[in-house]
Amino acid sequence: MKSVEFELNKEFRNRFQQALDERDGAFIRESLEEINPADITSLLYEFNGEESKYVLDLLSLEVRSKIINDLDADTRKTFLGHYSTQEITEIINQLDSDDAADILNELPIKSSEEIIARLEPELKSQVIDLLRYEENVAGGLMAKELITAYDYWTVVQCVEEIRKQAESVSKFYAVYVIDHSNKLLGRVSLQKLILSDPRTIVKDILDEDVVSVETYLEDREVAEIMSKYDLESVPVVNVEGHLVGRITIDDVVDVITEQAEEERQIMSGITEDVEEDDSVWRNTRARLPWLFIGILGGMISARLMGFFEQEIARITAIAFFIPLIQATGGNVGIQSSSLVVQTLVNPSFVDEGIWKRLLKVFSVALLNGAFLSVVVFGITWIVFGYDPLNLVVSLALFFVVVFASFIGTITPLILNNLGFNPALASGPFITTTNDLLGLAIYFLTVHLLL
Amino acid sequence: MKSVEFELNKEFRNRFQQALDERDGAFIRESLEEINPADITSLLYEFNGEESKYVLDLLSLEVRSKIINDLDADTRKTFLGHYSTQEITEIINQLDSDDAADILNELPIKSSEEIIARLEPELKSQVIDLLRYEENVAGGLMAKELITAYDYWTVVQCVEEIRKQAESVSKFYAVYVIDHSNKLLGRVSLQKLILSDPRTIVKDILDEDVVSVETYLEDREVAEIMSKYDLESVPVVNVEGHLVGRITIDDVVDVITEQAEEERQIMSGITEDVEEDDSVWRNTRARLPWLFIGILGGMISARLMGFFEQEIARITAIAFFIPLIQATGGNVGIQSSSLVVQTLVNPSFVDEGIWKRLLKVFSVALLNGAFLSVVVFGITWIVFGYDPLNLVVSLALFFVVVFASFIGTITPLILNNLGFNPALASGPFITTTNDLLGLAIYFLTVHLLL
Repeated sequence: MKSVEFELNKEFRNRFQQALDERDGAFIRESLEEINPADITSLLYEFNGEESKYVLDLLSLEVRSKIINDLDADTRKTFLGHYSTQEITEIINQLDSDDAADILNELPIKSSEEIIARLEPELKSQVIDLLRYEENVAGGLMAKELITAYDYWTVVQCVEEIRKQAESVSKFYAVYVIDHSNKLLGRVSLQKLILSDPRTIVKDILDEDVVSVETYLEDREVAEIMSKYDLESVPVVNVEGHLVGRITIDDVVDVITEQAEEERQIMSGITEDVEEDDSVWRNTRARLPWLFIGILGGMISARLMGFFEQEIARITAIAFFIPLIQATGGNVGIQSSSLVVQTLVNPSFVDEGIWKRLLKVFSVALLNGAFLSVVVFGITWIVFGYDPLNLVVSLALFFVVVFASFIGTITPLILNNLGFNPALASGPFITTTNDLLGLAIYFLTVHLLL
Repeated sequence: MKSVEFELNKEFRNRFQQALDERDGAFIRESLEEINPADITSLLYEFNGEESKYVLDLLSLEVRSKIINDLDADTRKTFLGHYSTQEITEIINQLDSDDAADILNELPIKSSEEIIARLEPELKSQVIDLLRYEENVAGGLMAKELITAYDYWTVVQCVEEIRKQAESVSKFYAVYVIDHSNKLLGRVSLQKLILSDPRTIVKDILDEDVVSVETYLEDREVAEIMSKYDLESVPVVNVEGHLVGRITIDDVVDVITEQAEEERQIMSGITEDVEEDDSVWRNTRARLPWLFIGILGGMISARLMGFFEQEIARITAIAFFIPLIQATGGNVGIQSSSLVVQTLVNPSFVDEGIWKRLLKVFSVALLNGAFLSVVVFGITWIVFGYDPLNLVVSLALFFVVVFASFIGTITPLILNNLGFNPALASGPFITTTNDLLGLAIYFLTVHLLL
């Protein structure tokens, strides 16, 4: 229970930094002895790469490998620059095949080839098999380590097999049952294995209704299936139904977390997977595309307003309400699209057909539009006195709310149908579109009524 | 493996609807016989409450309970309106204590009291204990069902205990070892239990370094810990270190998914936990607060521009570039805040102190600002011809990018320090602020230079 009680207080951190400066290996080794590797990983994020390597070299190879495996991919990529291929080979030899393949994927091709050539034979063949798959499909998520049994075996034989393989398979919840062509027949949970008489035949306790995924299934679909059926691990089969690996829930938790992160970036108009501590140049580059599109939208707005120059020159106050119109259009659009994205991510009772759905969106928009129009009409009357422009602004606002709701609703649906990530529709895309739309509606109203 | 291959094709759905209309129980029962309950749940989302109840009543109590437990909370709340308290009691008696408590929490107090009174004694006392906790802390997530052993037992005694409790505990990965005061001493994984000689004493194979969480720990912290230490289940202890329950990874996956949903809503300016299929009124109400704040921002913009009426009347084109300035300010602000939120959610190497961080933000802003200014200057020159206004717009744009980056960076940090959800800073809050700020900078530049 030490692990959760291990807190990084300032005092300890200073003392640790001092020990690092003095290269006081004895102190460092002693103070980390009883600490969970995951906590050491957190600690290392406080120090630079060279210092971290010094600390890791003091620890056992096993702990060192765990920590390097725990690092996030970006950090690890830089950090492994401090290591020779020989050192990396030793570390990777300690890992499960899926983690090994992930790290090898991050390394320059020359290093990874050198390392693969020197891996232990079993891991080597597993890794070579895994590297064929894209990172974002079941094949790229799975590990090769699993415990298999034949259906004519007894429970005792199963336990024997577990004993044999337990060293290479770090964590498992079930034994997968196959036939001689390696076709998946079902699974037996450890729970069942413990409770069964040792002489029982596997066939008799076999759970045949096992959910499996195929190698090419997308990672987000794997996550959905595991969460839908509440699975802690899922076997992976190839197109012929042959068992080729398994995916555990901890990998899927990572997938879900990464998806949330990706969605946040898309919604905020960032085009690359970038973090605050990436380089200035990378941060700049990740932002420019959407900023540039926003600028283009702004230019088109300027051109559009040019057509109404005379109206604006006649009644300057027309210009005053542009921010109000555009901000509301943008806000309504993002609200609408975000609700649709939510339904797409997490379907529930809603699938009532597109018309019923649009009717509802329309009702909500009418209510919101009516309320906001009345409020704006009231406030402008009180603040600026009565003017026909008040009416025009309120009326335009009403139409902007209705149209922005409509655009906000159909854009993610269309993007989704075209195979794009619908979250795109909750970002600067919808704001830019609605800015233009709002402006057009406003000036049209002005033109018709003033 | 039927479960994943069960597809809801249109033909089947129509045939099923027909069977429902004709109350053809035989067909329904037969067609659902081999289907995984999770798939039946998905199917039911296609039909109305009354029809769904008719289908469920045809199934076994066990399957029925699983399906009702699988429904999302909002749907279930409505759906259980079709059931008598007697029927709900039967269903809840089938569930694990944590699921039972969740459902009871959703029911009106009168029904839940009636049901609790009639629950089976063991479940009743477990549920009463669980209902004390808020939903969003470890105590509210945990289940009471767990398998415990004393450290002086042998492996055989452990297995005996598992056999006794296996009926009430549906899924478990480890046996928790306690002393006579119920204090948690450690755990033994099922894996180890299988591999150990039956006469081994538990004390000798006990893993003492077990990570546990206390009842009052927030759900998001539980999720962080389980994902940090790669745990499939975690024991929950009270302040005295006594074992009171356990949390499994599937509950935590739900927590992570809900958090992502909550964040999306905050970022898109929706103030209630609302879904597309909630009522029109609820959908309207959830959107109004931020729309209203946006309107207020727009009003202040209008008032602000009133002060520059003469400038606008003199050079109408000043107004043309307001959308450009505001859109860019909004986009930059959201990009910046979203990166900061990401670092807050998922800390990595970045903690270099606030000054170094701001310096970097400043560098990125300078680069982005410079690039966009030059582009805007070039385009306006080409499209509109040379005019001093071009220079003013470009210069103002540069300052807007720099200030919006700054505001976007510090707002989430301040919100986080004040104990608010920093994601608030990636929504309409930052857009509204930056709209005003951008306008002020623009008109100040116009006023000084034109």
